[in-house]
Amino acid sequence: MMRTRPLKVALLGCGVVGSEVARIMTTHADDLAARIGAPVELAGVAVRRPSKVREGIDPALVTTDATALVKRGDIDVVVEVIGGIEPARSLITAAFEHGASVVSANKALLAQDGAALHAAAERQGKDLYYEAAVAGAIPLIRPLRESLAGDKVNRVLGIVNGTTNFILDKMDSTGAGYQEALDEATALGYAEADPTADVEGFDAAAKAAILAGIAFHTRVRLDDVYREGMTEVTAADFASAKNMGCTIKLLAICERAEDGGSVTARVHPAMIPLSHPLASVRGAYNAVFVESDASGQLMFYGPGAGGAPTASAVLGDLVAVCRNRLNSTTGPGESAYAGLPVSGMGEVVTRYHISLDVADKPGVLAQVATVFAEHGVSIDTVRQQGKDGEASLVVVTHRASDAALGGTVEALRKLDTVRGVASIMRVEGE
Amino acid sequence: MMRTRPLKVALLGCGVVGSEVARIMTTHADDLAARIGAPVELAGVAVRRPSKVREGIDPALVTTDATALVKRGDIDVVVEVIGGIEPARSLITAAFEHGASVVSANKALLAQDGAALHAAAERQGKDLYYEAAVAGAIPLIRPLRESLAGDKVNRVLGIVNGTTNFILDKMDSTGAGYQEALDEATALGYAEADPTADVEGFDAAAKAAILAGIAFHTRVRLDDVYREGMTEVTAADFASAKNMGCTIKLLAICERAEDGGSVTARVHPAMIPLSHPLASVRGAYNAVFVESDASGQLMFYGPGAGGAPTASAVLGDLVAVCRNRLNSTTGPGESAYAGLPVSGMGEVVTRYHISLDVADKPGVLAQVATVFAEHGVSIDTVRQQGKDGEASLVVVTHRASDAALGGTVEALRKLDTVRGVASIMRVEGE
Repeated sequence: MMRTRPLKVALLGCGVVGSEVARIMTTHADDLAARIGAPVELAGVAVRRPSKVREGIDPALVTTDATALVKRGDIDVVVEVIGGIEPARSLITAAFEHGASVVSANKALLAQDGAALHAAAERQGKDLYYEAAVAGAIPLIRPLRESLAGDKVNRVLGIVNGTTNFILDKMDSTGAGYQEALDEATALGYAEADPTADVEGFDAAAKAAILAGIAFHTRVRLDDVYREGMTEVTAADFASAKNMGCTIKLLAICERAEDGGSVTARVHPAMIPLSHPLASVRGAYNAVFVESDASGQLMFYGPGAGGAPTASAVLGDLVAVCRNRLNSTTGPGESAYAGLPVSGMGEVVTRYHISLDVADKPGVLAQVATVFAEHGVSIDTVRQQGKDGEASLVVVTHRASDAALGGTVEALRKLDTVRGVASIMRVEGE
Repeated sequence: MMRTRPLKVALLGCGVVGSEVARIMTTHADDLAARIGAPVELAGVAVRRPSKVREGIDPALVTTDATALVKRGDIDVVVEVIGGIEPARSLITAAFEHGASVVSANKALLAQDGAALHAAAERQGKDLYYEAAVAGAIPLIRPLRESLAGDKVNRVLGIVNGTTNFILDKMDSTGAGYQEALDEATALGYAEADPTADVEGFDAAAKAAILAGIAFHTRVRLDDVYREGMTEVTAADFASAKNMGCTIKLLAICERAEDGGSVTARVHPAMIPLSHPLASVRGAYNAVFVESDASGQLMFYGPGAGGAPTASAVLGDLVAVCRNRLNSTTGPGESAYAGLPVSGMGEVVTRYHISLDVADKPGVLAQVATVFAEHGVSIDTVRQQGKDGEASLVVVTHRASDAALGGTVEALRKLDTVRGVASIMRVEGE
């Protein structure tokens, strides 16, 4: 059954992930050939710095001309692990036009231009696979797209950024502040020199857009995702969370509205109960909950980043795409038939934990409670704490829309007796 | 793009799972059609009791003649949810011969005759999918077979039987004995009237055979799987486990030997540390750890049984198989190219927790320790406890082969000072 002409792979990018892809393609060549039904051959490696020594890679394969590589015409699969929008987008588009299928790990590009790239792949009858774009090695795209293809997904709730989980876990376990925990993450290589993409939630938002699109068979772009970073989470927030039997995680949440008529996608820090399986996801690990009509709750857990884990996901896609080429077929493409409207944050319904600094005098609680009631936000619990003429009031609400909560907070700020709103945090996973 | 001639599905069995499959096929018909690219139609339902009223199923579709149904010649996909070896095996074989692909939830049959069924499918150019055979709704077959196709899996370690996990969880949390916990499981519908298949580990062993075969690209049959039930686990064992910071789970463990030259598959109760994610899998839930070279540790968690969750897995397969038919292709078939030898239990290397009843006199520990040393089993910790002239000795070993441990225990039994071996339990997941 084994075909002897090898399938040719062009590798774009040879950094942390690319070098692992090349290494495994070499060391596991026999296994890959047996699983695909034909040998795979590294036919070219496009890099920025050709002079760098790359162990195990034939220097004759290395080029700085990525465009010429994808346009060669004899390439079966282009593996794109450069990241970023350009030149990745142009290279992938050119790859399809010149007969190749594509495996990509590029979450930013998929979240921004997924629809156009899928359309380009479909026009040329080629595959576009990107398991590695979300949560590293964790199989998530394939289970959502294929295993749950006969089910109705209602919610995807997950920790999809390892850097921020490392920082929050550190704050939780040591009582450290944000900056201190970030410094440690940077020192250990978990955070980049410029951590903005991670700590401001851009990375997680891109993944949320991809997951929501697949889960709800609806186009969800990065711009559709509400995004709030975790740089303002404090040690005091963790103390409040502990009081509630919770911890704090940066969550990506994709939800179908209860009436089924729209979807939302958002990224923000949130309290979750310690009893929730996501609460015990430590360090830089990722985990994603998927809730569906028939299957109930599923969880997928594993390393969300790193060279080897991401390469594992890339190679799984490479095997699938190569098999498809040998069978002259393609795997499932974009599925956006449902075309549900993507609602803004105002429509999101959840619970809230609000800390208020208030005057320590009689009647304050009654005033505050009245404001909540006027905005239709029902209070679950209130805790009052007085100290030195000042007092704090911690309110945990029942489920309410973000719009209603926003109106409530605006009105609270106008009360003379409310000195300030110390923090507002959503409570999820209950 | 939508084809209008429907794909025809024959459903064999209409019990807990089958009725959910039929229900979802009806209620989600539009979604399934959009995801497949053609409508799917329930063309016949084979049952044993035709007179039973089945809500939502057209009585005209119901037949007792399953053989005639699979031989009709116009069936695209046969969904087999009867279970057991016969008549399921003959019906599936006939289905392939008459042009249908097959989706099955039948772990016992796949574990016993998987190779022959795969061969029959391949001869006819048809698909055989069975995600629902292992761990209900949890996507496991597809991730192992496809997502990890570019990786090297070294170990699969999981809780794959919900009934026994419910019983063990109950024993752990309430201190109940086995019989009491089993009675509760039966009363709540988690255990069948005859619980043998679950509590003696037959069900988990079948799943272990299937998982090992896929993970190691090697044929592993049910007979190759070492199997030990959990009926002899006692409240005292749980107390010992707690002393060690562990709990007890019935585990399915598929391992590649350290030298890579062989594999093992086994099912038995074992202690695992409370810090291990499998320790906190509660009730009838399932969870499976997969350890691979590149991806590291992945975990998959969810409901391991039940009508709707199992139907979710069946329908995911149904969508994939239907798509393959429309594209005139097939998905990955059996992959057994590695053909690794499957070693017996003697080759398994792990740690052990051994409780001995011994005479309460000087020199006993020295005698016992000598026996361990003579058999090359290194001791990690010993705890001695005296009471009323009797004493107990709890020994926890370092990693040793099952054969070496067996020799040790045999020699211990011959010591005059050893009154009895109260329990031997493996310690996993460290």
